[in-house]
Amino acid sequence: MDHRTKFEGTWIRVRSELMDHVASEGMLPEAVEWYGKNLDYNMTGGKLDRGLSVVKTAQIIKGEELDDNEYYKAAVLGWALELLGACLIVSDDIMDNSTTRRAKPCWYRVPSVGLIAINDAFMLESAIYYLLKKHFRHTPYYVDLLELFHDTTYQTEMGQLMDMTTALEGNFDLNRFSLDKHRLIIIYKTAFYSFYLPVALGMCLTGVPESYTLEGKTVEPYKVALSILLLFGEYFQSQNDFFDFSAPPELVGKIQVGTDIVENKCSWCVNIALALATPEQRKVLDENYGRKDPAAEARVKEVFEAVGVRERFAKYEADMYERLEELIAAIPEGPERGTLKRQIFMIYLEKIPKRVK
Amino acid sequence: MDHRTKFEGTWIRVRSELMDHVASEGMLPEAVEWYGKNLDYNMTGGKLDRGLSVVKTAQIIKGEELDDNEYYKAAVLGWALELLGACLIVSDDIMDNSTTRRAKPCWYRVPSVGLIAINDAFMLESAIYYLLKKHFRHTPYYVDLLELFHDTTYQTEMGQLMDMTTALEGNFDLNRFSLDKHRLIIIYKTAFYSFYLPVALGMCLTGVPESYTLEGKTVEPYKVALSILLLFGEYFQSQNDFFDFSAPPELVGKIQVGTDIVENKCSWCVNIALALATPEQRKVLDENYGRKDPAAEARVKEVFEAVGVRERFAKYEADMYERLEELIAAIPEGPERGTLKRQIFMIYLEKIPKRVK
Repeated sequence: MDHRTKFEGTWIRVRSELMDHVASEGMLPEAVEWYGKNLDYNMTGGKLDRGLSVVKTAQIIKGEELDDNEYYKAAVLGWALELLGACLIVSDDIMDNSTTRRAKPCWYRVPSVGLIAINDAFMLESAIYYLLKKHFRHTPYYVDLLELFHDTTYQTEMGQLMDMTTALEGNFDLNRFSLDKHRLIIIYKTAFYSFYLPVALGMCLTGVPESYTLEGKTVEPYKVALSILLLFGEYFQSQNDFFDFSAPPELVGKIQVGTDIVENKCSWCVNIALALATPEQRKVLDENYGRKDPAAEARVKEVFEAVGVRERFAKYEADMYERLEELIAAIPEGPERGTLKRQIFMIYLEKIPKRVK
Repeated sequence: MDHRTKFEGTWIRVRSELMDHVASEGMLPEAVEWYGKNLDYNMTGGKLDRGLSVVKTAQIIKGEELDDNEYYKAAVLGWALELLGACLIVSDDIMDNSTTRRAKPCWYRVPSVGLIAINDAFMLESAIYYLLKKHFRHTPYYVDLLELFHDTTYQTEMGQLMDMTTALEGNFDLNRFSLDKHRLIIIYKTAFYSFYLPVALGMCLTGVPESYTLEGKTVEPYKVALSILLLFGEYFQSQNDFFDFSAPPELVGKIQVGTDIVENKCSWCVNIALALATPEQRKVLDENYGRKDPAAEARVKEVFEAVGVRERFAKYEADMYERLEELIAAIPEGPERGTLKRQIFMIYLEKIPKRVK
């Protein structure tokens, strides 16, 4: 059984725990049924990358297979993280007026759901804390888990707010955009919860302490993990943005592409173009970016090609690969249990195409 | 300086702590500014009953004035509870498609806010956990505070879901309603967070333990408080429902009245009427309740008068008063610090009109 199948197989038990709890609270049958639909619709069909990362991190740090009890605890943390992801997606889709998600209508667009989806998003979040209480309240790291979720949720909301205040519709001033702003938004909106949180949860679960000494060096493993994983988050979101402009043929039809320009998004591509544009090219961008008009979109794309967005991305990717490889190699590593392992980060690095510069 | 003025005076410091934190996270200036507006709009102008209750409970249990440090800690918990209230209100107003709140447009109806209000609601919630971490993480009751907020938030969301699934628009089957269902919904949607939570927070802060022995009896003070305060919550929400049908003259114009019938609400009044109606009266209710038509509303009101909703409420009120008075008198009380005091509950009892049966 592969990793994903094994992890997916634990959902039925986690789901039962959540359903049994709301039923035991005495909730009305129609509300219990509704909650079940909320879980089924929003917790299935995703890639589960974040949840799986929690389990993989725990396995790598332990250095051997987790026993059944350890595996289930890691999986519960993985599902708690997937619940956070579902909560964010359900509410972001409403705010962005999105249509489809994972090849289905967004939850709030399901007939009879509508804005009840807001409360459903909050309930997905509350389910996290119910699971943590049930499985971890007697562990010494319970408070650490709670604070990891609280802090990261807040950071993600800050990222969402920065994204929305930057992209307020009807505002076409490209001076609002910059590469620094782009980096800040994607780190807050995505990288903390998608990249740092899964690894930090796995570290917490396997008893990685705040700091330890290895090879004569003091290591602060959560800080090390944070600095590397935020970079990964920055890279993968920038890659997303680049694919929106120019998806490789094997991805076309599998991911949503070609919406950032008309939706006035503060994407990696427009920021690179702004940094490189001549005054004439800048004028074209100013007059055409964010307009819901195919001709305007085509003119923006011409500027992207002319300033060399493709070449710039290839260089950015190669630089990032090298930088990350060096950071990972610099992690002090020993055979001790409960310490940081380079392999955790190598899994992410292997997903970046290695180019010849 | 009266209680309310003193409590209100602490907001500026709490607000600064919240603003300094998001600014120190490196958020963009326009997002920091937006967050400030969110706090100002949604945290001011309310009655602050819940927040004040936290402080009062702490004072009563201590048995003397709180010193400045104790007062501020109690106030922080009070404001944390007010943040939860604001979060619930901001999101409920969107789900209910409401127009005004505290004599101003609802936050989501403010131009340029719109559905960004969903993220704003989440940020108000996250602010709770930032404040708790900042002020209480080194106290022995930190986890208790976190769990009180988590558990109560989840219960409130369950209440909201039960309310919405019961009231789904376009469904006119009054068989969905019952007094038991009404009680369940209002206990979950309102009583836990508005009545139990403030007192429980004040108890937690002043070191009231899970159980103690007094006058030879084992007391479980949180359970005692819960059973009494949920009854208060049930009474005050039923009173709200009754005032919607028949507000005393001094309240007309101060509270929103006369919307429950046309909005198809599962209110105390319709449930009492359903329990007492003759088959003919029931037919009138079936055909007229929940219709946005003044003539239909008038016919429903006639049935309410005919079955004696007013007299029933007077009897319900007198019964509740008596029952609560007895429950409060039965609380074992001694001079010891850190034990439950009857006075906490007397403050709520004094708000119920004492009628001659």
